[in-house]
Amino acid sequence: MQALLFDGQLRLVSSYPEPALLPGEALIRPTLVGICNTDVEITRGYMGFRGVLGHEFVGVVQACADRAWVGRRVVGEINAACRRCAVCARGDESHCPERTTLGIDRRDGVMAELFSLPVACLHEVPPGVPDAAAVFSEPLAAALEILERAHIRPTERVAVVGDGKLGLLCAQALRLPGCEVVVVGRHPGRWAFLHDLGIQTILADQTGEGDRAIGRPGEVSVAPSPGRPVARSGAFDVVVDCTGHPSGLAVARGLVRPRGRLVLKSTFAAESGLNLSMLVVDEVALLGSRCGPFAPALRLLDRGLVRTEPLIAGRFPLSDGLNAFKAASGRLKVLLEV
Amino acid sequence: MQALLFDGQLRLVSSYPEPALLPGEALIRPTLVGICNTDVEITRGYMGFRGVLGHEFVGVVQACADRAWVGRRVVGEINAACRRCAVCARGDESHCPERTTLGIDRRDGVMAELFSLPVACLHEVPPGVPDAAAVFSEPLAAALEILERAHIRPTERVAVVGDGKLGLLCAQALRLPGCEVVVVGRHPGRWAFLHDLGIQTILADQTGEGDRAIGRPGEVSVAPSPGRPVARSGAFDVVVDCTGHPSGLAVARGLVRPRGRLVLKSTFAAESGLNLSMLVVDEVALLGSRCGPFAPALRLLDRGLVRTEPLIAGRFPLSDGLNAFKAASGRLKVLLEV
Repeated sequence: MQALLFDGQLRLVSSYPEPALLPGEALIRPTLVGICNTDVEITRGYMGFRGVLGHEFVGVVQACADRAWVGRRVVGEINAACRRCAVCARGDESHCPERTTLGIDRRDGVMAELFSLPVACLHEVPPGVPDAAAVFSEPLAAALEILERAHIRPTERVAVVGDGKLGLLCAQALRLPGCEVVVVGRHPGRWAFLHDLGIQTILADQTGEGDRAIGRPGEVSVAPSPGRPVARSGAFDVVVDCTGHPSGLAVARGLVRPRGRLVLKSTFAAESGLNLSMLVVDEVALLGSRCGPFAPALRLLDRGLVRTEPLIAGRFPLSDGLNAFKAASGRLKVLLEV
Repeated sequence: MQALLFDGQLRLVSSYPEPALLPGEALIRPTLVGICNTDVEITRGYMGFRGVLGHEFVGVVQACADRAWVGRRVVGEINAACRRCAVCARGDESHCPERTTLGIDRRDGVMAELFSLPVACLHEVPPGVPDAAAVFSEPLAAALEILERAHIRPTERVAVVGDGKLGLLCAQALRLPGCEVVVVGRHPGRWAFLHDLGIQTILADQTGEGDRAIGRPGEVSVAPSPGRPVARSGAFDVVVDCTGHPSGLAVARGLVRPRGRLVLKSTFAAESGLNLSMLVVDEVALLGSRCGPFAPALRLLDRGLVRTEPLIAGRFPLSDGLNAFKAASGRLKVLLEV
């Protein structure tokens, strides 16, 4: 079968072996696949992963021991847990030490004509949710994980730093309880739909490099967009860093108030030189957040409460996957049609 | 001026004295006023209140020492706090021991051609929010107070017991973070818009008396509406009692899981004979919740995230206020046009 894989370099192959049907798993033909920043990072060496790329998908079950699944349109959680260990037993499957992760860690991903995933990871897509929305279930679930981990009150001011794919989903999720939400970003061309949703925007200092850089380290220089308020230092109860860049994290840290919460959504934030004295001096709580719950993500998509079409930058056939990856860097969501 | 007041009986008077302009307050001409169950209860003796009734309004500022307020369209918080005591200093103005409460406690209410409220209580209504939606700011704020007090996660199952005015607002507020929300009620004719919003409904046992009664005390007998799941005992992480009736509270208590949270939204729940042993044996947390934050309520109305028009049962002129009160008992929201 055709597959897009990374074996030291990104390659499209036409004769990759089809996966076998394993007990407790399902074989799925993806319909649409999203390219995530993590996929791009893997092609630069992240996680040392070798195999078929991709973990954001919507598809149809082709084969499964439980015949009830066959033919169903599904999305799926990306962590395949053992479901036997103590971590799994307390409900923390996404932290199972034995887990493999779809297209990221010891498990072939979804950028192929067929892939395998445990039935326990699958979620049927409601009929009213189109494929082009359902393919955002995984990153939207990751955005909702913020609300799982932290009590964010309707009266609180929330800043989302970064107006990339994840930032635009986080801002939409966090506005829903009624919070005042401000996106700090560098791409005013992406903001019209945010304003329609009642989300404010602030232009960050344009000195970073690439899609994921905002501001200089240690600086909080954000200029207002016309008619919009300036973000004062320490003006926010909750700040979410979605930039994946140390300079973005520095901006985020500057915006959070004493005793506020700073949420890290980016895999790479740990590499930053964040001064942890703020935890003591300013009593800022630092919260990490990773994979999230699919069921509420599907409910929000089914209820039309999150917009995904403004996040789509382009579509490519799987056979043009190499060009799709080139187009994906520094852009909004690029989708692959399988 | 014309005013609807309670002085032992409900009366419409045409020559009530106009309020004086006090320092720090504003005189407001209401445009629309909502009749709350609390208003009806006051006419039955609740709070021992005497004076002009009403606390849900949208109106226009007629006079104020701060001229910037004059002519603005406003809604307002109902607790007039001293803003000097220790309770106020820690931000808990709605618990100020010196507070008066609009149309409820030692302060004339809004069912008149003019009333007075501290400027600190006022919130300007965004231009996109029509009067018929803005008049729901106060009960919607009360619904949002649940999310202020409790961390309700997107993955949690929430039941709202009672499909009256407050229940229909609470259900809408609680669906927004992505929760699965089920309304347990007795009025299927009110449910179509809930289904459109992705909120499920379950028919309660039809044995209670009046609008606010659901089920017999101690019973949890809820029958499914067609195609909907049955609510099993203990099936919900969070249960909100909006019935204001001991039998409704008993239903709510039966639906909450061990270690779940039971939220009381009704002023009258304290009179119930709830067996508090559940707090110990089942470790159910009991949370009270009263007045809530207006700013997020106005944001949700401005963003079109909460529907209010299905909650309106009728409109009467203030001059027909006596009939309006008769129509309001056991019905959805009756509005007075001033």
